[in-house]
Amino acid sequence: MASGINLAVIPGDGIGPEVVAEGLKVLAAVLPSEVKLETATYDLGASRWHRTGETLPEAELERLKAHDAILLGAIGDPTVPSGVLERGLLLKLRFAFDHYVNLRPSRLFPNTPTPLAGRPDIDFVVVREGTEGPYVGNGGSMRTGTPAEVATEVSLNTAFGVERVVRDAFERAAARPAKKLTLVHKNNVLVHAGHLWKNTVDRVAREYPDIVVDYLHVDAATIFFVTQPERFDVIVTDNLFGDILTDLAAAITGGIGLAASGNINPTGAFPSMFEPVHGSAPDIAGTGKADPTATVLSVALLLRHLGYQAEAARIEDAVTADLAERDAATPRTTETIGDALAARVAN
Amino acid sequence: MASGINLAVIPGDGIGPEVVAEGLKVLAAVLPSEVKLETATYDLGASRWHRTGETLPEAELERLKAHDAILLGAIGDPTVPSGVLERGLLLKLRFAFDHYVNLRPSRLFPNTPTPLAGRPDIDFVVVREGTEGPYVGNGGSMRTGTPAEVATEVSLNTAFGVERVVRDAFERAAARPAKKLTLVHKNNVLVHAGHLWKNTVDRVAREYPDIVVDYLHVDAATIFFVTQPERFDVIVTDNLFGDILTDLAAAITGGIGLAASGNINPTGAFPSMFEPVHGSAPDIAGTGKADPTATVLSVALLLRHLGYQAEAARIEDAVTADLAERDAATPRTTETIGDALAARVAN
Ligand SMILES: CC(C)[C@H](C(=O)O)[C@@H](O)C(=O)O
Ligand SMILES: CC(C)[C@H](C(=O)O)[C@@H](O)C(=O)O
Repeated sequence: MASGINLAVIPGDGIGPEVVAEGLKVLAAVLPSEVKLETATYDLGASRWHRTGETLPEAELERLKAHDAILLGAIGDPTVPSGVLERGLLLKLRFAFDHYVNLRPSRLFPNTPTPLAGRPDIDFVVVREGTEGPYVGNGGSMRTGTPAEVATEVSLNTAFGVERVVRDAFERAAARPAKKLTLVHKNNVLVHAGHLWKNTVDRVAREYPDIVVDYLHVDAATIFFVTQPERFDVIVTDNLFGDILTDLAAAITGGIGLAASGNINPTGAFPSMFEPVHGSAPDIAGTGKADPTATVLSVALLLRHLGYQAEAARIEDAVTADLAERDAATPRTTETIGDALAARVAN
Repeated sequence: MASGINLAVIPGDGIGPEVVAEGLKVLAAVLPSEVKLETATYDLGASRWHRTGETLPEAELERLKAHDAILLGAIGDPTVPSGVLERGLLLKLRFAFDHYVNLRPSRLFPNTPTPLAGRPDIDFVVVREGTEGPYVGNGGSMRTGTPAEVATEVSLNTAFGVERVVRDAFERAAARPAKKLTLVHKNNVLVHAGHLWKNTVDRVAREYPDIVVDYLHVDAATIFFVTQPERFDVIVTDNLFGDILTDLAAAITGGIGLAASGNINPTGAFPSMFEPVHGSAPDIAGTGKADPTATVLSVALLLRHLGYQAEAARIEDAVTADLAERDAATPRTTETIGDALAARVAN
């Protein structure tokens, strides 16, 4: 645990700045006074791109490296061509800082609405690979815009990349009471990548005889997410399947207003980055309707990563308590929710 | 409309033969006596592979071409290495017969259980591309099984392939009352394939000014499937996203026991193939627990494709009526359900 936290903040686009403000408020409130919090805000996202054409200049990337961690709000705006900010900023950060564990816990809190009848008991965590797979940006198009166009997307998978994230997932499963790990892939169709994943999990599993290991095709996994989500404990999966599954996971556990994530480099070689799963939601930006809880829970993941276990737990307890008292009929503003959570953790 | 139907039947593995038997029973019952039904059964699947090592010999493929349509039960067995039958038989058929429209309607029938609270009004159809994308089998691995392994999967997308399925989807949307088409992709990450899809939809949309066109990232689409499925009418999407979304669609509309599909070659150059969305479910094979309704509804799609609109409607009405009377507490066998549906369509 550091004697202080040197945090990079990337508020980003849309509701990003609003939710990040509340995340920082709660972070400041929960930290003991002897822990010094320093923050540096980075102006990255749509408005920077419009102004300068830059997404993430190398100099900024260098400066970001010096921080203990990064808190990011949301990236993306309809005025920017699709992919420019996602590839040039968000994914660039995940790749440059080797965030190979994209950690996305899902828990259905009491009193939280779920679209599922019968309110199943949901408490699992998705360990999504963050630096490989279909996300590598390897592909292209030729005869673009003509009737003879061909466009490719290449999923790159390495034993190195798969094994390290699989090991991380086994460690997380070992630390949880249910001790269950489910690999999700599509190895009956994507046979080469699929077999690499399956063989890696089978091999590492021999070192963890206490952990029950399961395999599901991604299509079948979506079925179980809505019919039997209690069967999941730790899920390990590739970058794209993890993207899809974690949005669905968010939907069944109260919506993306609550879903937190960490882009983690477990080696500590680069700062890890914490962000809500939701996007920039430009349609509600500035209205005070955004729920900052996902960002606040991302701050808890950040604290856990930096070794502040007690503070992380205080935030999670505060969220649980706050959610227990929420009344869907009387929605609160972004700021009101942030204030309430800050007050709870300060106690 | 042909004066007879020359049908190829591939019962396949697991529950495949059981559900196909009921599908054929209903087909025989619904056809007017002047329509001659000829069937030829093809022994393809796990047991053939175990016996001969063959998945789909060229001679069988040639023979299959002569039929008006194909009815398939299910392919896949745990005793066969993952991918062998899927790639060597099921996908080989879809690719060889250029089944570029993989049609998967989803409707929540009255009295049918859904995991979703509030029983939303679900009635949409997914037009899944069937011959391109990540399913082409273009990829490989090197240094396989070593710590230096690299495995790739290449998604191939062509203007030719995308445009023809997009046009088919627009035609289907034009024929439906809601007149809405949603493209699902991930064009903020898979930018090359994504832009080809998006640009194609935008261009074709200009020919259909009455159709409301929408775009969703695949991750966001899974959210709306469980929170707001009534927003969908026709969905057009790539092969892999379509695979994932249609299992989720099946889950929210009563389960894969009800989900039908058609692998359609709209040009008629090759026979189209109809199959339930579910797999071979080896765990319940032989127990009489399999629900043949998905196969029966696939027979309805088959009839519609061959021009027997009235007969298709009779089957769909029979299923609706049968489902309305089902009582979850007293489950019926595969055969009992088939008998009940056959009796209803014969009336
Ligand atoms: C914005 C997008 C690039 C991103 C992703 O696909 O990873 C988002 O959906 C997420 O899940 O964090
Ligand atoms: C069995 C498998 C190859 C197949 C697919 O992925 O298309 C199945 O899941 C389906 O949806 O028909």
